[in-house]
Amino acid sequence: MTTIDNGVNVQALLDAREVLAGAPEAAQFTWKATSKWTNGVHSQTTIQNFFGLGEERSHKAVAVFDADHPEVFAAPDNGITPIEYLLVGLAGCLTAGVASVAQNRGIQLRSVESTVEGNHDIRGILGADSDVRNGFNDIKVTFQIDADASRQEIEALVAQSQKRSAVFDALTNPTEVSVEVV
Amino acid sequence: MTTIDNGVNVQALLDAREVLAGAPEAAQFTWKATSKWTNGVHSQTTIQNFFGLGEERSHKAVAVFDADHPEVFAAPDNGITPIEYLLVGLAGCLTAGVASVAQNRGIQLRSVESTVEGNHDIRGILGADSDVRNGFNDIKVTFQIDADASRQEIEALVAQSQKRSAVFDALTNPTEVSVEVV
Repeated sequence: MTTIDNGVNVQALLDAREVLAGAPEAAQFTWKATSKWTNGVHSQTTIQNFFGLGEERSHKAVAVFDADHPEVFAAPDNGITPIEYLLVGLAGCLTAGVASVAQNRGIQLRSVESTVEGNHDIRGILGADSDVRNGFNDIKVTFQIDADASRQEIEALVAQSQKRSAVFDALTNPTEVSVEVV
Repeated sequence: MTTIDNGVNVQALLDAREVLAGAPEAAQFTWKATSKWTNGVHSQTTIQNFFGLGEERSHKAVAVFDADHPEVFAAPDNGITPIEYLLVGLAGCLTAGVASVAQNRGIQLRSVESTVEGNHDIRGILGADSDVRNGFNDIKVTFQIDADASRQEIEALVAQSQKRSAVFDALTNPTEVSVEVV
């Protein structure tokens, strides 16, 4: 019998599920970003610390991300646009889910690739038409997966990944965002 | 009279608003990400090309982003978590908006800093409690702004930035996301 290994420690996740089901306060995480304006519409955002399992924690490395607008918006393109970061998050989350579910179901993955496309009518953010929303009109994700599984099993992996995806939920359902100035 | 310069070419944006109000097809952008699974829940997502103003375009540089889970999730922490990318996008979008609106209103900015915190009950993604959503419970953004303006004017900048923010809309309102396997 071949050992299935997608590199996901599923047992740890199953153990965490069991422990946290009885300890809801430990399951409360706070993810945190700090951002500084540079110039124009360019900013740098840093991710390092977060709170979870009852205490302050840190990623192994500090990560800094540039956001800017492209030259077609008369900006210097010192980084990707803010809205593109949502596509990065969505791709990463669904891919992580596919790997985790595959591991749990004993399916060996060989490759997982995806393309995420967000359609965006920029008349909204420009204020050119108040009937046009500011965000994406819609998003389309396309997966290409090579695995020791049937087409049906692969489609089921992707479906289960969506069902448990933090980012898929955050984009398809509303979240309350409060903004204050101190 | 002092010249206000936040580095934003507001005139180009006002011109674009006028042109695109009469050319809705040119205003249709498609932002695009391509992603590859690496191992475990680690993936790498690349942003380079997008479509807008009627043709395929590219950012000046190719940008690659690692997403992974932290060690507390029994993963090697080779990058920030997918959901943290949403906070990066939100910080970048609201900050760009503050700079643009300030330029348009003749307000000189000296510094703009923000903290974005996303509260997340991870019992949802773990499947420990089906009443808990997968995404953020809520997000809180806090701005610290130093500018040649009154407190009231600064609060109005932030309010107008939210009103025109692509990412604020994408997080506070639902977007249709379709996922397919090819």
